[in-house]
Amino acid sequence: MAERLVVIGGDAAGMSAASQARRRRGPDDLEIVAFERGTCTSFSACGIPYWVGGQVDEVGKLVSRDPATFRDTYRIDVRTRHEVVAIDLERREVVVRDLGGGGRTVRERFDQLVYAAGSVPITPDWARTDALGVFGLQTLDDGAALLSWLERDPRPHRAVVVGGGYIGVEMAEAMMQRGLSVTLVERSPEPMSTVDPDMGALVRQTLCELGLDVRSGVRVVGLRSRDGRVVGVETEAGTLPADVVVLGLGVRPNTALAAEAGLPLGPTGAIRVDLRMRVPGIPGVWAAGDCVESVHRVSGQPVNVPLGTHANKQGRVAGINIGGGYATFAGVVGTAVTRVCGLEVGRTGLRERDAAAAGFEFVTARVESTSRAGYFPGAKPMTVKLLAERQSGRLLGAQIVGHSEAAKRIDVLAVAIWNEMTVDDMANLDLGYAPPYAPVWDPVLVAARRAAEALR
Amino acid sequence: MAERLVVIGGDAAGMSAASQARRRRGPDDLEIVAFERGTCTSFSACGIPYWVGGQVDEVGKLVSRDPATFRDTYRIDVRTRHEVVAIDLERREVVVRDLGGGGRTVRERFDQLVYAAGSVPITPDWARTDALGVFGLQTLDDGAALLSWLERDPRPHRAVVVGGGYIGVEMAEAMMQRGLSVTLVERSPEPMSTVDPDMGALVRQTLCELGLDVRSGVRVVGLRSRDGRVVGVETEAGTLPADVVVLGLGVRPNTALAAEAGLPLGPTGAIRVDLRMRVPGIPGVWAAGDCVESVHRVSGQPVNVPLGTHANKQGRVAGINIGGGYATFAGVVGTAVTRVCGLEVGRTGLRERDAAAAGFEFVTARVESTSRAGYFPGAKPMTVKLLAERQSGRLLGAQIVGHSEAAKRIDVLAVAIWNEMTVDDMANLDLGYAPPYAPVWDPVLVAARRAAEALR
Repeated sequence: MAERLVVIGGDAAGMSAASQARRRRGPDDLEIVAFERGTCTSFSACGIPYWVGGQVDEVGKLVSRDPATFRDTYRIDVRTRHEVVAIDLERREVVVRDLGGGGRTVRERFDQLVYAAGSVPITPDWARTDALGVFGLQTLDDGAALLSWLERDPRPHRAVVVGGGYIGVEMAEAMMQRGLSVTLVERSPEPMSTVDPDMGALVRQTLCELGLDVRSGVRVVGLRSRDGRVVGVETEAGTLPADVVVLGLGVRPNTALAAEAGLPLGPTGAIRVDLRMRVPGIPGVWAAGDCVESVHRVSGQPVNVPLGTHANKQGRVAGINIGGGYATFAGVVGTAVTRVCGLEVGRTGLRERDAAAAGFEFVTARVESTSRAGYFPGAKPMTVKLLAERQSGRLLGAQIVGHSEAAKRIDVLAVAIWNEMTVDDMANLDLGYAPPYAPVWDPVLVAARRAAEALR
Repeated sequence: MAERLVVIGGDAAGMSAASQARRRRGPDDLEIVAFERGTCTSFSACGIPYWVGGQVDEVGKLVSRDPATFRDTYRIDVRTRHEVVAIDLERREVVVRDLGGGGRTVRERFDQLVYAAGSVPITPDWARTDALGVFGLQTLDDGAALLSWLERDPRPHRAVVVGGGYIGVEMAEAMMQRGLSVTLVERSPEPMSTVDPDMGALVRQTLCELGLDVRSGVRVVGLRSRDGRVVGVETEAGTLPADVVVLGLGVRPNTALAAEAGLPLGPTGAIRVDLRMRVPGIPGVWAAGDCVESVHRVSGQPVNVPLGTHANKQGRVAGINIGGGYATFAGVVGTAVTRVCGLEVGRTGLRERDAAAAGFEFVTARVESTSRAGYFPGAKPMTVKLLAERQSGRLLGAQIVGHSEAAKRIDVLAVAIWNEMTVDDMANLDLGYAPPYAPVWDPVLVAARRAAEALR
């Protein structure tokens, strides 16, 4: 009899695991069933702001593989609108509610289980409301609901986005592109707290220049509604009128079900896994994606980094191992890139606060340079900031803010961090030079030199 | 009495050395004299094609620092139109001809000498001609002469560019931008022999689609002229009519003077230097830039890579050491990027022929991917090729051809090579992901995975 693999969650991590397992083991050897609470599989949540903003014209483009493809091509039994409501490790069964079938539940047997339930939006008490016009942005259905609200009479004109992280700023841009007047509220002193405040200030400045009303250092305390529609966001600094409110307050790992079943959670609140994405101490149970902890290769600490790129890699690792192969997930260095209103933001490694918390003594260096040779048309300013360990000179973190060809330069620094390079050695790097692509000293090299000088 | 530093060559390497030495030692401690055969200092030769093509509107923009700035701000006695014609190591003097002063020569004493004479264009016998309309492209004067020829009656309409390396393809593009009909002749089977032929074929295809007449695998044997003007390029496959001919046949290190004086040349024909850019065995003599050998960090062999980015770094290293500091040049990995007709080409490490010559046994992997998430507007195709050592899996070389956001991705691979990463480990890298910048699996990661599979 075929072994049976049950996958909880039909997005990046879960479906990568299922596909990789299938690639190595045929349907006669391994039966695969995937349960997805929503209506679609393997969609790009990261693409939602661009769909809302109108740059991606059709929602279907955000779905990389639909359930039918998984069923027909991969022989994976994907059941959408099915929510797993309990995991019975004793009997090796999951309890599944059919959301489309009147909510009845069935029990389904498993030999192997992949827990890939993703994340859930952080929703403070003040944000829980029955008023219309308030939106999170996690699923394609959320995006569709927002879009339909924007086209409904009376047409919303004033948007307030709560949260200045990357989803927040991307959504603020999207709403501006839809012609709304947009206010962004962020509790921290600067938006984009994924970078240090001095770099966040550069982001705020650009956003303001582009017509976005940025209120940073402002705490939201409530929503105001009238006749069942949202009309404002209440903050400690007064009420902001709003016809539509978008919540971008971040996510937390979706672990309720896992915790109930006794899967071990780590200090971040996410599920602990080993290098092969096995849940330690529970044979045959795997976890991957936004709901798990990863090792941060610089701090050595567990972190929870909900990003599609990690979810894909981790799911793939689990799937290869379930399929009888060998693969490990090597950890993260905290790389992330964002584009907002023509501004590019990249980061990798540790911010100042992370480095301090991890116990590092460090120096910082910040340089202004340009994306191309100064004389080349289209050369744009770029700011690069580096953190280096004081004793060793090892690169600990890097941040880039620029107007073009900036964000992906962070990859060079991510690879340098991955290899524990010192800023001294980095200044020697043989990076590509040609006038359309870089000044003769690439901004990354200039920053490395400056950091090396700061160490002396 | 102040020590006296003489610099031969007033471009990137020489003036970087002079500036760095000056930064550490004042004029009372170190007198600095720099002799430059041409009329200007520290100009961007790499920028000439963009000036000829009209993208850079003013030649002055290509000069990063002029002689007056060096004299006034740096207290460096720059003498342009002065050619050093002999080095007398015995008496620690150079013999200098004043090209502007009737050609009289003087002897100038030195304590320290930096040899930074750069490179000279390769000019086969057939290319030596008195006919007007034939141009090399090494100095700003060359560029000015070409531009004035293009505007002279009778106006040239047909250009032939000889040589399909990066200067050749860049110049071909520049001439097309000037409205000429352009033929590119290259002896090798494909243009851009800085990449493997299979990647060069992609370049040829794009160039042809854009209206460039590419004749690859064709050997030039002579020039044809009438009434003192060039009228054609003779090849083994017939004569190509031409009103203007641009020679882009590469350069060789300018070492005649050095060799005469007894400076040691290595197997590449360039000057041997140690890690600090000292000429071994000759105290107080340094060399840097296009005229020296560097260690290739992958093959371990000496190479001569005439690129502004290395010249700047090497000059800086020499200058720091002359100034009493400590710096070394860490070698190269062969990174280069080019843009031609909207196509981006990047390379690093070893090509197939280099890897074979170095003694490596290797596998290759080539993948097609896109610059951005497939659904994101502006996503463009990109081809990534990797070479990995068969036994160890170590990355040996990489090449990228794409239509946007392609070339500088080579830097990620250059840093991976620098750190001797295996393709297996590279597939784990935490690279920036967001829909405007990359698919969820960056093309570099896809290529690394494919190479890792090729090893098994």
